[in-house]
Amino acid sequence: MPIVSDKELQRRRGEIIDAARVCFAHYGYEGATVARLEEATGKTRGAIFHHFGDKETLFLAIAKADAERQANVVSERGLVEVMRDMLTDRESNDWFTTRSEILRKLRTDPDFESRWREHQEVLDRAVRQRLESNKQMRDDVPVPVVQTYLETVLEGFITKLASGEPVERLEEMLDIVEQSVRG
Amino acid sequence: MPIVSDKELQRRRGEIIDAARVCFAHYGYEGATVARLEEATGKTRGAIFHHFGDKETLFLAIAKADAERQANVVSERGLVEVMRDMLTDRESNDWFTTRSEILRKLRTDPDFESRWREHQEVLDRAVRQRLESNKQMRDDVPVPVVQTYLETVLEGFITKLASGEPVERLEEMLDIVEQSVRG
Repeated sequence: MPIVSDKELQRRRGEIIDAARVCFAHYGYEGATVARLEEATGKTRGAIFHHFGDKETLFLAIAKADAERQANVVSERGLVEVMRDMLTDRESNDWFTTRSEILRKLRTDPDFESRWREHQEVLDRAVRQRLESNKQMRDDVPVPVVQTYLETVLEGFITKLASGEPVERLEEMLDIVEQSVRG
Repeated sequence: MPIVSDKELQRRRGEIIDAARVCFAHYGYEGATVARLEEATGKTRGAIFHHFGDKETLFLAIAKADAERQANVVSERGLVEVMRDMLTDRESNDWFTTRSEILRKLRTDPDFESRWREHQEVLDRAVRQRLESNKQMRDDVPVPVVQTYLETVLEGFITKLASGEPVERLEEMLDIVEQSVRG
């Protein structure tokens, strides 16, 4: 077997992640069977699970990549800007149709829940740090309350987006959210 | 067959609705099989479907009863108060665990979607009227945008509630929401 460089390994993993994301978005978590994941990625189940162990691990790898990308945006521009980005990126909107299944899984599968939380921690931390360090934020309400507020809006925003709410309406709505967390 | 008064008919329907709500909350929409609905209501499928036609109609009758009750609260006290009420009513929180399934059904089943929207219209209208007539509301943002904002918060709020977010945190968060829609 030829030796594969780290860079090549990352590239292969990235390819599987990108193709699998489209597959999960299209069929949902349950509906994205191993056969469909093979078809979408153009790889055998052996190759896929060599990189990611099992379907849940593959799914969580996608969620983790998203959380890391969003955490970067949060650090520089805040959580409202993450939502603005979602409005212009249709592909991630398709992906969010898996959200309702995930929420159900989080409630009913404690192992999945703890793995999910671990992957989301990078985003939670970025939001908290941004709120603590941003001088433009209101300071009459404790940071954890503002954080709960923004996360609640994000949750509803994803739901609205996935259910086909007009983008312009959501865009204007975000201005209210932005104002309400500023000092 | 004895003649049944309207009042008695309403009572029987109400009994089925109350028992079926608990069943849907516990098992989810798909999981609430006809056998489980029979067990929960203590009635035969013949009796249940005499009143409600089929499972979807029964489910929508529960959703309609909720929407009507919430519309009444909205008219008198606004949508934020509907959310505050949810914080103290644990039973309705259990019910909201069906929400994620419903959102999926709304996306994939156009017939269900149109029936659902029809039932929710009473609540949409109440929110719109409240926003238009309430002098305490901010008037620098069009009513439809404020409405989208409040509905987005409600959607996220229900998700957070169903996923076990601490009630106190959500309570404090609602103060931010209330402030942000006032003039």
